[in-house]
Amino acid sequence: MRAYNFCAGPAALPTAVLEKAQQEMLDWHGKGLSIMEMSHRSDDYVAVAEKAEADLRQLMNIPENYKVLFLQGGASLQFSAIPLNLLGKNSKADYIHTGIWSEKALKEAQRYGDINVVEAGTSINGKLAITEQSTWNLSADAAYVHYADNETIGGLQFAGIPEVNAPLVTDLSSSILSAPIDVSKFGLIYAGAQKNIGPAGLTLVIVREDLLDQAKTEIPSILKYSAQAKNDSMVNTPSTYAWYLSGLVFEWLLEQGGVDAIHKVNLEKAQLLYGYIDSSDFYANPIFEANRSIMNVPFTLANANLDKLFLKEAEDNHLLNLAGHRSVGGMRASIYNAVPLAGVQALVNFMDDFAKRHQG
Amino acid sequence: MRAYNFCAGPAALPTAVLEKAQQEMLDWHGKGLSIMEMSHRSDDYVAVAEKAEADLRQLMNIPENYKVLFLQGGASLQFSAIPLNLLGKNSKADYIHTGIWSEKALKEAQRYGDINVVEAGTSINGKLAITEQSTWNLSADAAYVHYADNETIGGLQFAGIPEVNAPLVTDLSSSILSAPIDVSKFGLIYAGAQKNIGPAGLTLVIVREDLLDQAKTEIPSILKYSAQAKNDSMVNTPSTYAWYLSGLVFEWLLEQGGVDAIHKVNLEKAQLLYGYIDSSDFYANPIFEANRSIMNVPFTLANANLDKLFLKEAEDNHLLNLAGHRSVGGMRASIYNAVPLAGVQALVNFMDDFAKRHQG
Repeated sequence: MRAYNFCAGPAALPTAVLEKAQQEMLDWHGKGLSIMEMSHRSDDYVAVAEKAEADLRQLMNIPENYKVLFLQGGASLQFSAIPLNLLGKNSKADYIHTGIWSEKALKEAQRYGDINVVEAGTSINGKLAITEQSTWNLSADAAYVHYADNETIGGLQFAGIPEVNAPLVTDLSSSILSAPIDVSKFGLIYAGAQKNIGPAGLTLVIVREDLLDQAKTEIPSILKYSAQAKNDSMVNTPSTYAWYLSGLVFEWLLEQGGVDAIHKVNLEKAQLLYGYIDSSDFYANPIFEANRSIMNVPFTLANANLDKLFLKEAEDNHLLNLAGHRSVGGMRASIYNAVPLAGVQALVNFMDDFAKRHQG
Repeated sequence: MRAYNFCAGPAALPTAVLEKAQQEMLDWHGKGLSIMEMSHRSDDYVAVAEKAEADLRQLMNIPENYKVLFLQGGASLQFSAIPLNLLGKNSKADYIHTGIWSEKALKEAQRYGDINVVEAGTSINGKLAITEQSTWNLSADAAYVHYADNETIGGLQFAGIPEVNAPLVTDLSSSILSAPIDVSKFGLIYAGAQKNIGPAGLTLVIVREDLLDQAKTEIPSILKYSAQAKNDSMVNTPSTYAWYLSGLVFEWLLEQGGVDAIHKVNLEKAQLLYGYIDSSDFYANPIFEANRSIMNVPFTLANANLDKLFLKEAEDNHLLNLAGHRSVGGMRASIYNAVPLAGVQALVNFMDDFAKRHQG
């Protein structure tokens, strides 16, 4: 029996995708071998890889002057690759700091350039929030401005896309494909696959062509965007099975009606969960309403001594991986695209039952 | 029906491994989710990851003073990571050049240090060979000596382990686990997974502890061996599914009797195929006998005009991916651990039949 999986990442995948992968595991399309046993340069595999890219381009409406790269190493390797590729003659970049992931990105970038850190976290009525852009001290001449759209650990999300003059770079790891986004507003978008795209081991980079060729000479060629773009992400053997699975996820998303349609479901899921939490004296969410993530919902119990019992009973009810990140504690429900509305309904029903049994 | 797959990589996996992965795809050990949907920090996943490492240590008899890292990016990213980690105060390294892969490694290393290239390819009686070590012009003070044990494209393999004074570093991508090897003779061993370990997207690094902490400061933290060792290869989310599948391959190898046992099968397979080629006027292998790879067997047909027909008929006979690398042409049969003796027998029978029908 499949449980509901609220893991922050690696995260739930659509059951239909896993069923298809299962069915094709030993013999892909009658070819006598698994897709993971094929050369990445074979006609069959290249067709799979190209279809995945085409479907992603359709889902995100990616303009033609952007390259889509399917890389390895996680978003964390991009924390280095981005400054190594984009800080050329101009070694200055702005990094908006809103939480743990944007901090990791800027710490890594500090090895390679002159990083202007814009502190954008604040508190409004005791709730965590992101400051107004008008208060940000941006550089006049940054090579780019970096932000993490959705802080997976904190559950803090930008309400919109910042308007800046320099190329805008964003870590979309935990929000990509969850809502429509205007790609043309960005210089570069990157995302680890293991939340809304596919399994861990694949990293997407969507980069505007004019930014491809600014890399420093000492950059490892595997990290070089221009080289990967020229070689269709196959400078060396890519993570072929993860790429294939991501393609299945993109097909599934198109079948669901695309990003607009899944966004509606995501809003319904988020409203149901936040609405219940707000209506309860037993649960609380620490984020200012305008900056609440629609993907990662952290919450606390009125009595933290009940945390362990909550997690155990949740698991007994097939509601998995609700513990908050080890750095913050409490609970967190990650409700990515692959978590259905029924999963959030089951979670809310359980939370309500648990609260009634344990309310003082 | 499963065909025999002679692909050089991504390569054949044991059918039993794929069957187990298929069975566990939607619901791993009754937990209600796929292993690829689990947090890499969950108890269940960590146990899988640790067992994979323990089994590999047993298979290769890895001494305790070596760390085993499960990384991303392929052997090609290690071409950079190795000099970035090992060239500290001493920026000099020796690279033995025997073919395309050792050349790629040394070209990447040249970005980071003073690389002494030792040309070790030669010709003996018209066959490609590796020169005697006594003729190599090694540096007196290299930080390390690098070689590629088995040149996957050329089918050229070292007859033994070179004896050098500096730490020895080797690319074992296409020969790891094919034959016993004395790990204690090395400073560092690395291998892309997609030949004898598991699917693409995982890279193994086995590194002696005293070499861990020599990295330059500007190295991306994901590439830093000391950081990865300290964090059990989880500085960020690793390629969890590839790691799990590799663990299944290691279990399968132990069931086969370990590396000694599979080595005997590999020798039998190689002797059968080389023996047939040598006995034939229709086929030829270009490698000097002592340096023939037991994993990658390149061969040519007497009449290259028949290459396409050979490949088509082979495919009709469920013998897949026999085309040589695009840079050299001809044929190549990669006969990794997962290709059974019966597969090589079927190949030889087909080759013999084809030759009889087309011999002049």
